[in-house]
Amino acid sequence: MRIDAVDFFYLSMPEVTTAADGSQDALVVRVSAGGHVGWGECEASPLPSIAAWVAPMSHGACRPVGESVLGRALNGPEDIAAMAADVAYNSMDLLQASHTWSGVEIALWDALGKARGEPAWKLLGQERAHPKLPYASVLFGTTPEETGARAQAIRAAGFTAAKFGWTPFGLDLAEDIRHLEAARAGLGEDGVLLIDAGQIFGEDVEAAALRLPALEAARAAWLEEPFGGSALGAYAALAARSKVPLAGGEAAHNASMAEHLIEFGHAGFVQIDTGRVGGLAPARRVAERAAAAGVTYVNHTFTSNLALSASLQPYVGLEHHRICEFPTGLQPLARDLTLTRIEPGADGLIRLPEGPGLGVEVNPEALRRYAVEVEIKVGGRVLFASAKP
Amino acid sequence: MRIDAVDFFYLSMPEVTTAADGSQDALVVRVSAGGHVGWGECEASPLPSIAAWVAPMSHGACRPVGESVLGRALNGPEDIAAMAADVAYNSMDLLQASHTWSGVEIALWDALGKARGEPAWKLLGQERAHPKLPYASVLFGTTPEETGARAQAIRAAGFTAAKFGWTPFGLDLAEDIRHLEAARAGLGEDGVLLIDAGQIFGEDVEAAALRLPALEAARAAWLEEPFGGSALGAYAALAARSKVPLAGGEAAHNASMAEHLIEFGHAGFVQIDTGRVGGLAPARRVAERAAAAGVTYVNHTFTSNLALSASLQPYVGLEHHRICEFPTGLQPLARDLTLTRIEPGADGLIRLPEGPGLGVEVNPEALRRYAVEVEIKVGGRVLFASAKP
Repeated sequence: MRIDAVDFFYLSMPEVTTAADGSQDALVVRVSAGGHVGWGECEASPLPSIAAWVAPMSHGACRPVGESVLGRALNGPEDIAAMAADVAYNSMDLLQASHTWSGVEIALWDALGKARGEPAWKLLGQERAHPKLPYASVLFGTTPEETGARAQAIRAAGFTAAKFGWTPFGLDLAEDIRHLEAARAGLGEDGVLLIDAGQIFGEDVEAAALRLPALEAARAAWLEEPFGGSALGAYAALAARSKVPLAGGEAAHNASMAEHLIEFGHAGFVQIDTGRVGGLAPARRVAERAAAAGVTYVNHTFTSNLALSASLQPYVGLEHHRICEFPTGLQPLARDLTLTRIEPGADGLIRLPEGPGLGVEVNPEALRRYAVEVEIKVGGRVLFASAKP
Repeated sequence: MRIDAVDFFYLSMPEVTTAADGSQDALVVRVSAGGHVGWGECEASPLPSIAAWVAPMSHGACRPVGESVLGRALNGPEDIAAMAADVAYNSMDLLQASHTWSGVEIALWDALGKARGEPAWKLLGQERAHPKLPYASVLFGTTPEETGARAQAIRAAGFTAAKFGWTPFGLDLAEDIRHLEAARAGLGEDGVLLIDAGQIFGEDVEAAALRLPALEAARAAWLEEPFGGSALGAYAALAARSKVPLAGGEAAHNASMAEHLIEFGHAGFVQIDTGRVGGLAPARRVAERAAAAGVTYVNHTFTSNLALSASLQPYVGLEHHRICEFPTGLQPLARDLTLTRIEPGADGLIRLPEGPGLGVEVNPEALRRYAVEVEIKVGGRVLFASAKP
């Protein structure tokens, strides 16, 4: 079959705040090929990502992403690999390209899976889909008391693992210690406690190291993103001093960047957002390399169940990479986007939905309700106008 | 002074081809602050870079670049550093942000230099501006004969150093050998010959290694970008087998990425495009680290003299990092963009133009002649409309 059309849907809550909450808007991709429809989601700023799809060519190595996709054959994984190679080469100087391509690549696997009647994880070469232990992913409270209350609520909701993230953590050592103590107390002694610093320390190893004793005392299972996504030297320096393993990788916009965090940054957990890294295939590559290196692969997802399914596909075959990010407290947009819901089962574990591709049905009503209309004109010509759902 | 306005000018040749020629379009930035005007250039796809300036916020860590710049104070280098830190943090999930910011950052140094009556290189902490030996930067011919003729022409024009780049190099081993022989013969025995593979080998170390004997025989001074910009493992593997030093780094969109190529990729030359890496300050940081590591810093520039001046500012104080990229065969757009011209002197060396900031006068007529009009509407509101020069 051929790729007949690729449409982008920019969705947004009526009001977007500065909270570190990635579910406030979305860029959803629809691929139509041979009568099949596939869906994907970019974890990215919608407007520049759309622009990267339609941008006029600057030169041979700075072409729009659309040029490497539209009209192409889609009959097997090798076709997706060929398009990925073309995007990497023909759009090498268009930085945003990998964020745009990520959502498209996911939608291609979904369409291909539907055409073949196979789930994406199987097309990716995995034999079985193992259940995952979800950790509830929330932001720190503004006070330690609020953090403690959130931890208790998470435990009461049946989760045994939880991640607390972002500011105020990192701003004040004494307060950070109280937040960590409150999170541990609220979650209970046997809970899995994960901490996400949200890059707050930049490249400042000493500032991050000041938190290590409290992280150890609270028995944090990982410290996530203490530094900027590219600060490999800082990661390696902190890892050498820390009993708490480091986690990171969500900023990786290709497989190599994630592998560097393993090889050079000495992270113990590598967290991949399929909506940024280039989609399912590069994520699968990272999962295989992580497993070979004795590092645990984890999904990074802070948005809809469409993105959640995509994020699990590349490592659902790795039985012992058991933990998975499971965002709770999504904005209505992200909740409403899918008719399919992924929820923990009676055993507290997450399973991928049945069905071919991603196994997720998108809600056309949500595409209308949260639509943000975009029009881009260059040299008097309309290069992009929002599609109708 | 305060930053009153930042304007973007998208310029293009009437026809853009797939040639690896970055001078076919341009994104020029004008900063107005306290009555001073500064100019910069992004080495980037114009449309997504403009979109990254105006994109609606997605969440606290995915904000448009403009939010970290407009209205801010500009009284010293520390103000530029503060804005850079804010862009890195507040736009961490907006991938294109660093390409947009690069042009803005350069324009800020230009404006600050004009306000203080100081050249940018001095504001960056360097004591002297040393001359550089320009290498003429051209594409390989389609045949070895054409490559040889280009080499002869370059030598006849007075250059003693030349770089040949991109396909057909890398497509056919026997042909590659003939191109290398022709380039060396045309340039003469005493010329400095540089080869740019334009990422043609992806991550394929063996394919690149097949060219090493011919590169050595032709006495190439470096092999540039054999692999994708993030393929540090491939760089390290080839470096271990090659007598010809590797060069790379132009894809780095922050200082850390360039430093990784030194530390983990074992490159012998690090090539920085100030229009991508985040501007002059991160480039200066890379230059200092390169010098400390015994690696040679080189500018990467394939566009106007505005970009050329910016690219030289961060390492003009490093006397022994002597070679510099000097694009010849620019498209009329890139030539016409500046009234100031940077040309080799009677001794064959390049010197930065006198004058504060970048020392380059922009030609307003070129901003009109090559203007591409852009209008971006989101939710019925015009977020961007091309400014008048």
